[in-house]
Amino acid sequence: MKLVTANIHDRTFIGLIFNEDSVIDIQKAELKLYESEISPASLQACIEMGEKFVRHIEALQEWVAKEKERETYVYPLSAVKLQAPIPRPKKNIMCVGKNYRDHVAEMGSESDIPSDLILFSKPSTSVIAHEGEIDPHLYLTDELDYEGELAVVIGKKGKQIREEEAYDYVFGYTIINDVTARDLQARHKQYFLGKSLDTSCPMGPYIVHKSAVSNPQHLSIETKVNGEIRQQANTNQMIFPIKRIISIISQGMTLEPGDIIATGTPAGVGKGFNPPKLLKPGDTVEITVEGIGTLRNKVKEI
Amino acid sequence: MKLVTANIHDRTFIGLIFNEDSVIDIQKAELKLYESEISPASLQACIEMGEKFVRHIEALQEWVAKEKERETYVYPLSAVKLQAPIPRPKKNIMCVGKNYRDHVAEMGSESDIPSDLILFSKPSTSVIAHEGEIDPHLYLTDELDYEGELAVVIGKKGKQIREEEAYDYVFGYTIINDVTARDLQARHKQYFLGKSLDTSCPMGPYIVHKSAVSNPQHLSIETKVNGEIRQQANTNQMIFPIKRIISIISQGMTLEPGDIIATGTPAGVGKGFNPPKLLKPGDTVEITVEGIGTLRNKVKEI
Repeated sequence: MKLVTANIHDRTFIGLIFNEDSVIDIQKAELKLYESEISPASLQACIEMGEKFVRHIEALQEWVAKEKERETYVYPLSAVKLQAPIPRPKKNIMCVGKNYRDHVAEMGSESDIPSDLILFSKPSTSVIAHEGEIDPHLYLTDELDYEGELAVVIGKKGKQIREEEAYDYVFGYTIINDVTARDLQARHKQYFLGKSLDTSCPMGPYIVHKSAVSNPQHLSIETKVNGEIRQQANTNQMIFPIKRIISIISQGMTLEPGDIIATGTPAGVGKGFNPPKLLKPGDTVEITVEGIGTLRNKVKEI
Repeated sequence: MKLVTANIHDRTFIGLIFNEDSVIDIQKAELKLYESEISPASLQACIEMGEKFVRHIEALQEWVAKEKERETYVYPLSAVKLQAPIPRPKKNIMCVGKNYRDHVAEMGSESDIPSDLILFSKPSTSVIAHEGEIDPHLYLTDELDYEGELAVVIGKKGKQIREEEAYDYVFGYTIINDVTARDLQARHKQYFLGKSLDTSCPMGPYIVHKSAVSNPQHLSIETKVNGEIRQQANTNQMIFPIKRIISIISQGMTLEPGDIIATGTPAGVGKGFNPPKLLKPGDTVEITVEGIGTLRNKVKEI
């Protein structure tokens, strides 16, 4: 189950990817089937409905699969424009730092491997869609960099969540490019400013429901820039696995439906090369996480 | 002009402090005067209206002052329960670190005085009201500390704001207690986790519109714990003044109405004393900023 927020003509809708190359307009399909809209108009509100929403969408999908004439509510994917699945998260996106051993080494040394979770945030104003353009902010940074990451979307409110029950609180997964201005990150000490430029949080293309991901802790993750492989790893290399991340964060802080946690980036960021391979206008960044999709964004040409 | 979000019986309303000890229920007063509600039901939405809202409230206040029978829409302050003025900010609260020289010294040494702005965030789940209880999270931290701060509330969307025009983008001011778990702050390197425990962002009691604050860069700020003065300073001691903070943050990041920026804390935090004077259950923290008000919160007794 891959869920999207998308536009067709002037209408924003929530959709379900169907037969790989099409998308069901969920509310329009509901109108046809039930003669009224059932799901809320935002994916955030759908996620807040919890398992009820998931069961409902499963039933809707089965019904659509049997229908012959579905052109009014099933569109070719090529005809719609994706937004970020949650275009305006209710809280800043939470991001784990230094969560892959080889990445820690490339940015400093093995001695920097954290014994405690490193967490920072990116504001909702930084979120852009799959295929959205990354503003290079050339007047502000000389060191714009990419970071491909698997992101977890929380589905249920919780605090003091134990590791064993952590996945009960997950709704699904998406991909985030934790775009970073390395010079600002270093200069301002706390990461927030260097991680918070407008357009520095490409997200998507979908949220994949957890039922479609057999083991999120064993997925290949790969980042290409202009077709060249830069990052190639597996989520099984995380220092803090997903269940621990959720447990640690929630010890003192209530997690809520729609919260997004980016789980850190593997080795191969631009700054890690010698000489560095940082982003420049016109570059295309593609992040592929096995079973989750490919998030592609271009750095805006000036 | 002091604006609040408050409850009376089961109703949440936005209010205007009137004659110091009363509060005008803005929408109820509008119903009386205009026979319809004019202002939105949340202070966030009012702030988004901009100057139009401010002019309207000034007119409303003048009208109320002339009325004789106003009991149905003017309540004694003692009869209402304040919420945080913006109970659920749309973005994490942004906080400036190390912005008073003496505080930097007490936490380390003069050599730590930052040459570039240090910024981190606190999530909306940490916000509580004036008189709300701070959860000591005894199972998680041994070093809960207070930080009294003047906070700026943004009133207008902007990017790349110049220092000279920074105050055009300010709506008003409030007070924040940037409650911090010192052990978590140190252990997790990035400040976010140690600053984000539930109830660790008391805010209020009001938002004071900028028209009532002649010079926000010259206000006394004082924090008492159980009546003992711990912090005593003036906002003129900030290393990065308000206009610079706004300019620096907005260089790459769009600021929006309702964004809240806490401007840093002066010397005298609990951890700065030898031996430390950290918070314990039953303690009362009172932060007073000249012309802005007094924010009082008790640490929950166990």
